[in-house]
Amino acid sequence: MERDIQITEVALRDGSHAVRHQYTVEQVQDVTKGLADAGVPYIEVTHGDGLAGSSLQYGLSKVDDIKLIEAAVDVAGDSKIAVLLLPGIGTIEDLKEAASVGAKMVRVATHVTEADVAPQHIAMGKELGMEAVGFLMMSHMAPVEKLVEQAKLMESYGADIVYMTDSAGYLLPEQVTERINALRQSLQCEIGFHGHNNLSMAMANSVAAIKAGATRIDGSVRCFGAGAGNTQTEALVAVCERMGIKTGIDLYKIEDLAEDIVAPLLPVTPTITREAITLGYAGVYSTFAYHAKRAGEQFGIDARDILIELAKRQVVGGQEDMIIDVAAEMARAKAVASK
Amino acid sequence: MERDIQITEVALRDGSHAVRHQYTVEQVQDVTKGLADAGVPYIEVTHGDGLAGSSLQYGLSKVDDIKLIEAAVDVAGDSKIAVLLLPGIGTIEDLKEAASVGAKMVRVATHVTEADVAPQHIAMGKELGMEAVGFLMMSHMAPVEKLVEQAKLMESYGADIVYMTDSAGYLLPEQVTERINALRQSLQCEIGFHGHNNLSMAMANSVAAIKAGATRIDGSVRCFGAGAGNTQTEALVAVCERMGIKTGIDLYKIEDLAEDIVAPLLPVTPTITREAITLGYAGVYSTFAYHAKRAGEQFGIDARDILIELAKRQVVGGQEDMIIDVAAEMARAKAVASK
Repeated sequence: MERDIQITEVALRDGSHAVRHQYTVEQVQDVTKGLADAGVPYIEVTHGDGLAGSSLQYGLSKVDDIKLIEAAVDVAGDSKIAVLLLPGIGTIEDLKEAASVGAKMVRVATHVTEADVAPQHIAMGKELGMEAVGFLMMSHMAPVEKLVEQAKLMESYGADIVYMTDSAGYLLPEQVTERINALRQSLQCEIGFHGHNNLSMAMANSVAAIKAGATRIDGSVRCFGAGAGNTQTEALVAVCERMGIKTGIDLYKIEDLAEDIVAPLLPVTPTITREAITLGYAGVYSTFAYHAKRAGEQFGIDARDILIELAKRQVVGGQEDMIIDVAAEMARAKAVASK
Repeated sequence: MERDIQITEVALRDGSHAVRHQYTVEQVQDVTKGLADAGVPYIEVTHGDGLAGSSLQYGLSKVDDIKLIEAAVDVAGDSKIAVLLLPGIGTIEDLKEAASVGAKMVRVATHVTEADVAPQHIAMGKELGMEAVGFLMMSHMAPVEKLVEQAKLMESYGADIVYMTDSAGYLLPEQVTERINALRQSLQCEIGFHGHNNLSMAMANSVAAIKAGATRIDGSVRCFGAGAGNTQTEALVAVCERMGIKTGIDLYKIEDLAEDIVAPLLPVTPTITREAITLGYAGVYSTFAYHAKRAGEQFGIDARDILIELAKRQVVGGQEDMIIDVAAEMARAKAVASK
């Protein structure tokens, strides 16, 4: 099969957030079968927060990751099953287990400035005979030079592919073009793009990435991802077909899968809500939304203003404690200003 | 209020399709109030098929257009109420009535190759003191030169603004750029763009139009338009704010309106369904979908193949009879090929 780009379907991983990690073996197999039949080359199956994400903190899975991966592998035919791994949540042991049941690709995900936690996991992926991906999240938070530096680190660890991930759906197409161009000039390996649709730009961003040289693109059927969802796979296949970009995916089959199998699974239709726009506009972690709302109510500040302030201060995941401090500070400033 | 672009909100007209023309006076006033408060300069209020669209053929309105327009005008403050008029459905008399209750803009809509049915209505709009718009629908069906020729006709009739309307959500951003550039070079008047989201490109297309010189852009809050919906107004405001394009619209207020007032009105969430993608991919009238489905079942042909064939043959609205003929012909060709 000749393909200009290789699409990785993430509904069974990013979409795990949307079903609060309650995927069943049957659901995973139904979707995987349909994807394989349509010719999707890579299918990611993991808890939304990656291997071993199932926990009180991140949400307990209904079915253990390894069981779901194994079930997907059983029906995947020529398609390869990918797993997501966030170092610190998933371990080398988890990765070995995933490989032992047939996962063929590992995507090692770190914050865009923290590639240096990834080398062991990438090396182990290669040792296990997997394709290894360096997956740089919240990539808009780093200046272009920093992004390139971190991507080069990923490549130096042995990554076959480096992804730029627009986790917050913040980027606009010209920013994607600039960033993928810069990566293309500095890396030898393949480049990927993973978009979110918070500002209704996931499709245009994905096309911009392809034009700038990305050959790996993530999508989710029916936008079945976290929040506003991802680039919609079946629409991406249609757009690529119109543009003469070969995906190797059968348009009608992927459309039918989306409509007949995936849509009925969706607990709610992915929508660009006020919260989604706010996260994309500010460019902050989706987990901040709830904290900002509570802090906003406590201090009489619009949660959106808090999120924008957090973005200005480049607050990252794990620093949620700062949200209350920031809100308190904003409330004091407001009180002073109104005196 | 300084504005780089003027947004026209179409949820109370294009969205009329989505509620099968069942808008009430209260709903129209609630949404209009919110839009006016957020600073939206133009608000279109009409049956989905324009003035006098209420009919057995196009769907009966719950409340008469003129009553809804009057109700909107009453609460619109500084915002102007616009009406859509399709010559052949709406008449000069309908337009006079709309003007008499306070409509300040008329958008005279024709198929992209049929501008010549518009001169009387545009002239009457001007005579009535309204802003007049030439609204060229299904604009992707004409080659660029033809589009420019028809737009110039609209301008020659006195249109203050000429819109390029991507009725089927078919266009990709570079096509929008090419077309708006060509219009910009040939017209003196303002240029507008109205997009649909069938291929998830409405936002990128709107931004492409702005960059190429369009100053009037349509949006619908929460994508509240026909089928997959339009460019999402509140997301467009966010994107423009990020790009430094002044819309004069308050982002938080339009977000709150979308979430708190409009979302609860939506009978179903606008979604990029299989049918929406098919219409956008083929570039045909949404009204063809049902006929193609029936003909497909009758002749054992995939409805999508029929729609693509109709697009190749440039079949236009009003030629629905041809759908059966095309399906029959395809079935014969299939039978011959399989012998």
